[in-house]
Amino acid sequence: MQTKILLDEGEMPKRWYNIQADLPTPMDPPLHPVTGKPATPDDLRHIFPMELIRQEMSTERYIDIPGEVRDILTLWRPSPLYRARRLEAALKTPAKIYYKWEGVSPPGSHKPNTAIAQAYYNREEGIERLATETGAGQWGSALAFATSLFDMDCTVYMVRASYDQKPYRKSMMQVYGAECIPSPSDRTQAGRAVLAHDPETPGSLGIAISEAVEDAANHDNTNYSLGSVLNHVCLHQTVIGQEAEEQVAIADDYPDVVIGCVGGGSNYAGLTFPFAGAKLTGKHPDTELIAVEPAACPTLTKGLYTYDFGDVAGLTPLLRMFTLGHDFIPPAIHAGGLRYHGASPLVSRLVHDGVVRPVAYHQNEVFEAALTFARTEGIIVAPEAAHAVKAAIDQALLCRKTGEEKVILFNNSGHGNFDFSSYEAYLAGKLPDYEYPLELVKESLSRLPVRG
Amino acid sequence: MQTKILLDEGEMPKRWYNIQADLPTPMDPPLHPVTGKPATPDDLRHIFPMELIRQEMSTERYIDIPGEVRDILTLWRPSPLYRARRLEAALKTPAKIYYKWEGVSPPGSHKPNTAIAQAYYNREEGIERLATETGAGQWGSALAFATSLFDMDCTVYMVRASYDQKPYRKSMMQVYGAECIPSPSDRTQAGRAVLAHDPETPGSLGIAISEAVEDAANHDNTNYSLGSVLNHVCLHQTVIGQEAEEQVAIADDYPDVVIGCVGGGSNYAGLTFPFAGAKLTGKHPDTELIAVEPAACPTLTKGLYTYDFGDVAGLTPLLRMFTLGHDFIPPAIHAGGLRYHGASPLVSRLVHDGVVRPVAYHQNEVFEAALTFARTEGIIVAPEAAHAVKAAIDQALLCRKTGEEKVILFNNSGHGNFDFSSYEAYLAGKLPDYEYPLELVKESLSRLPVRG
Repeated sequence: MQTKILLDEGEMPKRWYNIQADLPTPMDPPLHPVTGKPATPDDLRHIFPMELIRQEMSTERYIDIPGEVRDILTLWRPSPLYRARRLEAALKTPAKIYYKWEGVSPPGSHKPNTAIAQAYYNREEGIERLATETGAGQWGSALAFATSLFDMDCTVYMVRASYDQKPYRKSMMQVYGAECIPSPSDRTQAGRAVLAHDPETPGSLGIAISEAVEDAANHDNTNYSLGSVLNHVCLHQTVIGQEAEEQVAIADDYPDVVIGCVGGGSNYAGLTFPFAGAKLTGKHPDTELIAVEPAACPTLTKGLYTYDFGDVAGLTPLLRMFTLGHDFIPPAIHAGGLRYHGASPLVSRLVHDGVVRPVAYHQNEVFEAALTFARTEGIIVAPEAAHAVKAAIDQALLCRKTGEEKVILFNNSGHGNFDFSSYEAYLAGKLPDYEYPLELVKESLSRLPVRG
Repeated sequence: MQTKILLDEGEMPKRWYNIQADLPTPMDPPLHPVTGKPATPDDLRHIFPMELIRQEMSTERYIDIPGEVRDILTLWRPSPLYRARRLEAALKTPAKIYYKWEGVSPPGSHKPNTAIAQAYYNREEGIERLATETGAGQWGSALAFATSLFDMDCTVYMVRASYDQKPYRKSMMQVYGAECIPSPSDRTQAGRAVLAHDPETPGSLGIAISEAVEDAANHDNTNYSLGSVLNHVCLHQTVIGQEAEEQVAIADDYPDVVIGCVGGGSNYAGLTFPFAGAKLTGKHPDTELIAVEPAACPTLTKGLYTYDFGDVAGLTPLLRMFTLGHDFIPPAIHAGGLRYHGASPLVSRLVHDGVVRPVAYHQNEVFEAALTFARTEGIIVAPEAAHAVKAAIDQALLCRKTGEEKVILFNNSGHGNFDFSSYEAYLAGKLPDYEYPLELVKESLSRLPVRG
């Protein structure tokens, strides 16, 4: 009875998979935030290295992973694929549940997969410091980890709600030598503007992005680094899905249902895109792809598919994506990494095209699923990953009703060792289930930029 | 350039290695705490299951691991063996540094190796609840994890200094369904006695053990479970060293130096005993075995080798071991798991016989080593494991001087995700290096029980 399926270091994917190659029509281009015209590589080069801009726009199916990046990724990759036998037994389901376990990376989530690549390309092009934002702290600590290995400086703007909930994520960044600042801060114009309007704001990813972009744009030796949303970030995460494909094949299986949570969309893309590609190209046309988001920030289930800014201040290019409006500030749910008004353009496109089906859950039912998982599989997951656990359990329970022996695969994107204040609130019955903030979203959507 | 050496689940050891089989003369027996006569199995059966008592006294070389225990261990075992190439490069050492990474278990340390086995044997003998103590919280959360998988209840007495430093370890135990109480508590006579004498005491493992033993002795459905020190605990940890032997052999190596930290001694025993056995039996007579302890609690380097109680209140049998005196309360260093007045009788015996060499370090130099490790290997270790990191770095630097290409192996026994308040104190320059508390130790040793 095998529990986990491992691959050797030599079996780690040598190329990233680019789903843009397999889309029936090309992606809508990003637009310049001021002119509204399609953004050119030159528009982006004051904050990104050229190679990442190239990857952002590339339609090549595979892009080689540099040797130095592979060497560092093998500190924890390939990550294990688990068969959740104890969970299956507890649910009395005929389904098979597999999960990819990304919590084995030193910072504890999938985020280093792209952090390492981004730090590498920036250092190759002479950049000495990276500025970024972080929600739950997973991305900030991943980039701090990456820059530490490449001997670069790092400044992280951390959403204040998470900064207060997870003080030790900040300490982790400091152990790796990075600077961590609660956002909104008085370091940037964008931050000062929000603070002037609401000094008590919990912050949001959209605000923190504005601050980091402004910081990078104002310093020659500094670039901006984004932990999710963009095409090149999704690309770097596809090692997850490629490994998972090999691993389920070792167990002689292929997933009927593939599940991940979506904040910006990168862990979702990472696991799902190789399977979405197989679905798009007709190799496995029937795979069900489910994207899970919080009901309090229901970008994919209730947002509009349109052009919007990636940040609050409107400094980023306009991206065509599902959005709740770039100045929408979601309620302070504990899954800080899922509090984003938009979503990856690639994931949004797949949802729009009906390739991916989104679902939304409230946080109490999500933590209930996380507790079931902890007490059967033993792993205490991050609140973000718990959304995927909840959907996987629901799918498995559906199979118990129908008797179907489906193969369910989900991405367990990170551990919850920094989330115990959230678990405490749940166990104490003090976790609010926020209503979908319809009026706020309407208001925010009414301020959508006009398409260029 | 391979970084980590993995084994398949099928390659996990099927037997525990019992070093008692390879000692030149038998161990001195434990003595009854009141009569001073050798303790019989009957003396112990009110707090331990018979099978663990049998293992405690066994001199069979190998003891089979039950299938159900193996099934659960494979949730994370075999654990990876790493070659610390990036650390080697940073130190410019000709030495090879390997480490066994036990932080991959769900609770994040080596402790579940024995927690699973102990919960299993207790459940097999009809026990419904386990009572235990915990220092840094690693053991308490490991036993909470184990009892949760076997559907048993669990009560953990947690040393107050750690309870305050690491609130989230408590939450982890609660997520697994256990009850966690700061020790000394008013639940037990032993706890009340200490509190009456010093209400502000940081507590100690010795006190918490008294409380847990008393709790177990007073409840029929409850047994006591110890996370270290005893022979059967050391036995269960030997999966670590057996795996490591196989893994270094895959790299065509054999260690010249084997290093681990010692609190009660179980992670040390786990990695080292298979190598100590090979040293004792003349198969590898020249392996250097180093045990690392905190200078503030220098049991092996400054203690006496004699009979003493395992706990403060004198409820446990008398064990022949190195001790600083059973009522010695060590300074509140951050490596809570190493704050114990005694040490495993087996490890003590090996030190006494000159098979193992003990060294002691102050906590600032230990955290400095941990920071070097985090910024090269990426892993942020627990303060306990950082003691082993420090010794490994010192050995590697010695090799840089001498030019020797030694093979160094150490046990990286757990992650530091619950230890960021300690790292913060270190980074802020606020970590005291306690002097060896000579007078307190002398006083405590003067109260040693008379040998039976």
